[in-house]
Amino acid sequence: MDNRPIGVFDSGIGGLTVLKEITEQLPGEDIVYFGDTARIPYGTRSKETVIKYVLQSFKFLLTQDIKAIVVACNTASALAMEEAQKEYDLPIIGVVEPGAKAAASATKNSKIGVIGTEGTINSQAYQRTIRKILPSAEIIGVACPLFVPIVEEGWENSDVAYMTAKKYLLELKEHEIDTLVLGCTHYPVLRYTIDKVMEGKVTLVNPAYETAKAVKGILKEKNLFSSKLDGGEQRFYVSDDPEKFKRIGGNIIRKEIVSIEKIDIEKI
Amino acid sequence: MDNRPIGVFDSGIGGLTVLKEITEQLPGEDIVYFGDTARIPYGTRSKETVIKYVLQSFKFLLTQDIKAIVVACNTASALAMEEAQKEYDLPIIGVVEPGAKAAASATKNSKIGVIGTEGTINSQAYQRTIRKILPSAEIIGVACPLFVPIVEEGWENSDVAYMTAKKYLLELKEHEIDTLVLGCTHYPVLRYTIDKVMEGKVTLVNPAYETAKAVKGILKEKNLFSSKLDGGEQRFYVSDDPEKFKRIGGNIIRKEIVSIEKIDIEKI
Repeated sequence: MDNRPIGVFDSGIGGLTVLKEITEQLPGEDIVYFGDTARIPYGTRSKETVIKYVLQSFKFLLTQDIKAIVVACNTASALAMEEAQKEYDLPIIGVVEPGAKAAASATKNSKIGVIGTEGTINSQAYQRTIRKILPSAEIIGVACPLFVPIVEEGWENSDVAYMTAKKYLLELKEHEIDTLVLGCTHYPVLRYTIDKVMEGKVTLVNPAYETAKAVKGILKEKNLFSSKLDGGEQRFYVSDDPEKFKRIGGNIIRKEIVSIEKIDIEKI
Repeated sequence: MDNRPIGVFDSGIGGLTVLKEITEQLPGEDIVYFGDTARIPYGTRSKETVIKYVLQSFKFLLTQDIKAIVVACNTASALAMEEAQKEYDLPIIGVVEPGAKAAASATKNSKIGVIGTEGTINSQAYQRTIRKILPSAEIIGVACPLFVPIVEEGWENSDVAYMTAKKYLLELKEHEIDTLVLGCTHYPVLRYTIDKVMEGKVTLVNPAYETAKAVKGILKEKNLFSSKLDGGEQRFYVSDDPEKFKRIGGNIIRKEIVSIEKIDIEKI
């Protein structure tokens, strides 16, 4: 048993979808969440910059006496997992591997689509990880930079969302994929629109859900479960103004964000 | 006469539209451009964070022996001009004041729209500056967060751009504005789409153009013109990977970006 909190790291607010899945599957665990809101978005930044930001963020989380780190951000998982795992000793779980595994086992025709930020798609991280499990897979990656601002506008079911999804997903439809990885924390919010464009013909994989399952497996394996069965508490830290995070974040986790503090991440 | 370069500061690549106007109106001036690409976008950040980033960026530009600074970023101009002018002695020209002046003199019915990022609109900087010149003005500000990624996708004349503009500009049409300030460096790229949505009935104000005119006026007033009449040279600095900047930036200024270097802005 280990009652120390789990650290959850994200480039901003999107990682709350991962936090929510963890609290549903592991209601007794305490969580410390850090959202690097001053430097969001990671999706368009170079690999070098993302690694630097991730290592700084880990340094902060490690001051919080945590037992494991979940990297909720797809871009950070895609670009910085190796460096992070080299640097630190505790279990580090990213979203890419659980998402890739679920996609590889869901597909029937071995044609898989992956959508995400420019950073995630260009990194080829999902593509590589899926191919390790299913070498015959044909994988098509498409960057969808408009999806995050559409979700943040609350326009997920609008005509703009539908037309945008049609433009981005056209290539995936032409390739007749049967499985699609929603490779960015914001994208599950668009799942109805995406499903409509794909005419209900593809299995949508949500890495947030798969990651929470993976966290449960690792805590069990390493005997790190909390002794509490529920009532886990959450503390939040951000690197920019907490007010916006509180407002939008409360909607995502469907519960008021009470304990939140701003930290100066560049001075950690 | 003063042959030192002009410093141009932007949160990223959009400020190249301002640089381009300056090189057209003042072809003999050397320019040092700094784009804070590692920390873009400023538009959704808190005032405190934007001020910190702007002062750090100025500190870098001042190592380059410049004679004046142009703040090409609307958000930075809106949130950090006062602090910057308090801190430093050289002429500092933002885009908000020239844009506001042009709008106040263009309107006939005193109904003016301003579009920009969340940071620019919430700051009320254009609204306040226009009202100082034209106290009776009715000013409606609308934040348009999807416009920047649409421009960066090259979708400025697509159906997505048109539908998005229709959603954002509806309120402005209902208020029957006759003048619209394009209060973000990227927006002039969308001018045809915006003009179509507004049915050709409004005067579009481009602060980049107005700012270059203002720079010319100040250099003249302070006797700071370069002794060269043309052939001004440009050097570029960015805080993230220069490759993307070079590629997209070359298209904006219609000329290859040769001299470009990455700096670590957090260590200045």
